[in-house]
Amino acid sequence: MQITQQFDISINGHSEPRLIRLRQRILARVARQTGVPVLGGAPALFIECAGPGADVQKLGEDESYTLTIDNRKASLRAPNPLGILRGAETFLQLIEQDESGWSVPALKVDDQPRFAWRGLHIDVSRHWQPVDVILRNLDGMAAVKLNVFHWHLSDDQGFRMESKRYPQLQQKASDGNYYTQDQVRMVIAYARDRGIRVIPEFDIPGHASAWLAAMPELGSAPGPYSIERRMGVFDPTLDPTKEAVYEMLDGFIGEMAALFPDEFFHIGGDEVTGKPWKASASIQAFMRTKGLKDQHDLQRYFNQRVQAIVAKHGKRMEGWDEILNPGLPKDIVIQSWRGQKWLVDAARQGYSGLLSAGYYLDLMHPAGQHYGVDPLDPSAGTLTPAEQARILGGEACVWTEHMPPDIIDQRIWPRLAAIAERLWSPAAVRDTDSMYRRLEPVSRWLETLGLTHRASFEPALARLAGSGPIDPVRTLAEVVEPVKDYARHLKSGRRYTQFSAFNRLVDAARPESRKSKEFEWAIRAKNWPAVRAMLERWRDNRPQMTGLLAEAQPLADNLNRAAQLGLDALDHKPVSRAALDELRKPKAELLLSIVPGIELLMAGVD
Amino acid sequence: MQITQQFDISINGHSEPRLIRLRQRILARVARQTGVPVLGGAPALFIECAGPGADVQKLGEDESYTLTIDNRKASLRAPNPLGILRGAETFLQLIEQDESGWSVPALKVDDQPRFAWRGLHIDVSRHWQPVDVILRNLDGMAAVKLNVFHWHLSDDQGFRMESKRYPQLQQKASDGNYYTQDQVRMVIAYARDRGIRVIPEFDIPGHASAWLAAMPELGSAPGPYSIERRMGVFDPTLDPTKEAVYEMLDGFIGEMAALFPDEFFHIGGDEVTGKPWKASASIQAFMRTKGLKDQHDLQRYFNQRVQAIVAKHGKRMEGWDEILNPGLPKDIVIQSWRGQKWLVDAARQGYSGLLSAGYYLDLMHPAGQHYGVDPLDPSAGTLTPAEQARILGGEACVWTEHMPPDIIDQRIWPRLAAIAERLWSPAAVRDTDSMYRRLEPVSRWLETLGLTHRASFEPALARLAGSGPIDPVRTLAEVVEPVKDYARHLKSGRRYTQFSAFNRLVDAARPESRKSKEFEWAIRAKNWPAVRAMLERWRDNRPQMTGLLAEAQPLADNLNRAAQLGLDALDHKPVSRAALDELRKPKAELLLSIVPGIELLMAGVD
Repeated sequence: MQITQQFDISINGHSEPRLIRLRQRILARVARQTGVPVLGGAPALFIECAGPGADVQKLGEDESYTLTIDNRKASLRAPNPLGILRGAETFLQLIEQDESGWSVPALKVDDQPRFAWRGLHIDVSRHWQPVDVILRNLDGMAAVKLNVFHWHLSDDQGFRMESKRYPQLQQKASDGNYYTQDQVRMVIAYARDRGIRVIPEFDIPGHASAWLAAMPELGSAPGPYSIERRMGVFDPTLDPTKEAVYEMLDGFIGEMAALFPDEFFHIGGDEVTGKPWKASASIQAFMRTKGLKDQHDLQRYFNQRVQAIVAKHGKRMEGWDEILNPGLPKDIVIQSWRGQKWLVDAARQGYSGLLSAGYYLDLMHPAGQHYGVDPLDPSAGTLTPAEQARILGGEACVWTEHMPPDIIDQRIWPRLAAIAERLWSPAAVRDTDSMYRRLEPVSRWLETLGLTHRASFEPALARLAGSGPIDPVRTLAEVVEPVKDYARHLKSGRRYTQFSAFNRLVDAARPESRKSKEFEWAIRAKNWPAVRAMLERWRDNRPQMTGLLAEAQPLADNLNRAAQLGLDALDHKPVSRAALDELRKPKAELLLSIVPGIELLMAGVD
Repeated sequence: MQITQQFDISINGHSEPRLIRLRQRILARVARQTGVPVLGGAPALFIECAGPGADVQKLGEDESYTLTIDNRKASLRAPNPLGILRGAETFLQLIEQDESGWSVPALKVDDQPRFAWRGLHIDVSRHWQPVDVILRNLDGMAAVKLNVFHWHLSDDQGFRMESKRYPQLQQKASDGNYYTQDQVRMVIAYARDRGIRVIPEFDIPGHASAWLAAMPELGSAPGPYSIERRMGVFDPTLDPTKEAVYEMLDGFIGEMAALFPDEFFHIGGDEVTGKPWKASASIQAFMRTKGLKDQHDLQRYFNQRVQAIVAKHGKRMEGWDEILNPGLPKDIVIQSWRGQKWLVDAARQGYSGLLSAGYYLDLMHPAGQHYGVDPLDPSAGTLTPAEQARILGGEACVWTEHMPPDIIDQRIWPRLAAIAERLWSPAAVRDTDSMYRRLEPVSRWLETLGLTHRASFEPALARLAGSGPIDPVRTLAEVVEPVKDYARHLKSGRRYTQFSAFNRLVDAARPESRKSKEFEWAIRAKNWPAVRAMLERWRDNRPQMTGLLAEAQPLADNLNRAAQLGLDALDHKPVSRAALDELRKPKAELLLSIVPGIELLMAGVD
């Protein structure tokens, strides 16, 4: 079906403002994707929505849709607006150029999600993320059909939410970087328009430095407390033995429960060190009185009290896997960050859960690795169908220790699209090569929404290059990746804080090098002229490694060396494995990502 | 002087909110340029402003400043805030990387502009430009020390200003795309904060299709009138014989004069076809009665009436060179778009004027060509000093026939920086090679302000490439330029309208190819390995020229051919000049910009 300048949308059946706004968004996006000013007038996309959705989007609400496209028109049908939203993204994703302009291919799609809970968690505490960052990522989430935004609003490094009842929280613990309640309402409405639930997290009783900077009297230790500037796991913890803590939480959770309409309320609950509890005579006495034998018992007591408060305000409690305890009611949800095991345990014990282990985008793993992680993995195969049904889905997590707002998009995208597909599509859709082929067009498409994961690259390179040439810096930056897992936290010898500058090559480099992948594909395809051209370019690449780039000179040298090894392998000359292994070592917190390709070449090019 | 994380600014002497906001902007820009979160606390830039500026920025107001930087601190002094604003941009432009971080070099600058009027004219009628486009270009203007924003608010293709007295103007003649008066006040305040005067233009009596779409009763012909969608010169003209026209202009100009504080008010006056005047018996009769012998006489009569209205509302009238006539008072200003001759004529006749001929950015000329145009060129050498003093400066012009908002920045920048230097710096600063060396860092620096002249390139290429590889499309796009002068209007065989799609290679390509310049420099420097590498890359470049790119296949082929010719020349093989001339022909409205370099090679490489 051609997309003409007169392209228009007709809404039939049930209508509501959310669908009318969707129509405007689709028209604007078609114009943006094609570069054609869309004048409307000739309906070609016919939307038919059978009925309204829930007033507050529900977990498990029907998201199915049918999209039928022939040579003349497209028809999008769904039982409720959520399905229309999902199908509209499919339609937009299908727009492609042809000789006469733009079109969508004839097809029929019957589509629905595999998991009901498909989320993205963003930590806005360690590095403040302004509202526009949130909004553009909500657009991206909607594009890949995610439906939960998990907003990590408090942590040691800052309390990011305005409280009218306890204004000292934002006044003393945010550096002025917090969301007003009006902004939060706007974000929630924006998310609802896109079929996304918003779940706030206020992490307690640990990760509470910011909280206690505002309310030191609620701490387990005498203090003083201040906003934590370093990154890591810290001791400040709410005192579970003080009634004042529960009074404050009752007031605060009540205020937040009225603001956030979603059914769930996330209380964190992770990484409690227990040290201030051990150090406090009164807390130890309390534990003896109550028969609480260790810190886990005390946290279980705290969680039970908090759960009662959350339930009183009409919400179901959610927490990280540390909160899993048979003493809590079965309507809570466990978010597993430490491993799939906890998810299976929770399901066996009758608890619902979702998977985040394996979906930590800040650990810089390749999209293919995340794509291979399934909330219902083989270990879940031993569960009964009823137990399996308790595994609701998954959430990708972004922890922002090293991510100011100008970097966060490229740390999330396009890899999140691969996780989103894992959570939406049937389990059998798991061809990683196919995913990678489709990921690049999706990445380009996502940027038409205003995401900056691609656009942020050039300004970062320009800053690094100073007044020198950018091209050779780009050639290097395209084939390096930040070190993986927690290496930047633990092995770099640097101590990052909230005030660190993230202006180095490791910050500009993308988590996964597309160029290195293309190199490997060219090798597998035995496209030797292309392989040789790449290697020669890398061998001869001589960026000016001055200023901020000076630290990465060894990496630039290693690229030249690696390319020479590759050329030698291509020419059937002997190549030393030791020399290659030397090139695997991280430099300036970066890995040379063409090394696996060179290794492939060495394994035999014939 | 090092720029540390504690960098701060101290304001001494006269202070005012404009300077306090400047301080905030400088701190934010230092952080953005360096990527270092600036915490402040240790003043290193000491600003000393001797006194206040004019309440409304005046033509010729002192903009001088002195900037002194040593190893420990920078001192910026000026007689008034304008000089401080200019000096601050110099300071920011000096920030560079060094081995230990960021610094500004020790130096002393005594600086002041050569011309008092240094402007940019933007046509927002032919293609609507939203407020954010205006704001980011004001930031860019301030960065290169321009001081007049000439806002072309009405033309045949749309009336872009809210009138409360005549709301039919925006209601019937803008498609809803107009600036509210609140937005205009905000833009004026934003500009004042940056030392920029704002002059509105409402083009009369010609270029009036939009005006007459709202008020057909004021036309020289019976109508009907409608917003013009095509581009060109059109007949709709206000009727200079109707008193109702002057009554309306009195009301409208009165309303606008209260809104725009600047001393000058631009009435256009260009390109009156005269046809509807010739065709109207009543207008012809009026001319006979008044003794007006031709259309120029009638327009002079009109201009005299309008000038009286403009003066009544406290403004000095400005117009395009067609309004020059001894019947007008000497306080008007003539803007010369047709040639330097009119400027010299005006000065001789006692009129002030400014130069725009030679500064039309939409004609796609190279920065070096604009840089060579001087408002006081040799033809002005015959003027007396008093006459020369009437030549106030110049204005770059952007006419937006082919420029939707996503393209306009790259049509303006970085070339405007070269014009800005011509208007600011001493006449003797005219080394074009030096300008080009400095233009690239300035271009990068300008984008840290939010301009999109560089950032817009990749999304445009991605759209052209569809799901295919972008790299070879970029390689082609980097070495082509849109056809020059009015070729796109007159010679392309296409009839562009306000609704045309500007999504083709000619729209993505920059007006001046930096890569082609680098190619020529490499040839002049006899850097043969670099020259050969470029040529081989171009010879072997094979973009997928499908969809929107299909029309440019001949251009892609010509690049391969041109590169082979260059390689032949490099290898001392005979090269046919006829073959080279064939490659000069425009294809898909684009020129292959490496041809001059190939010609250089052919002229002899030894």
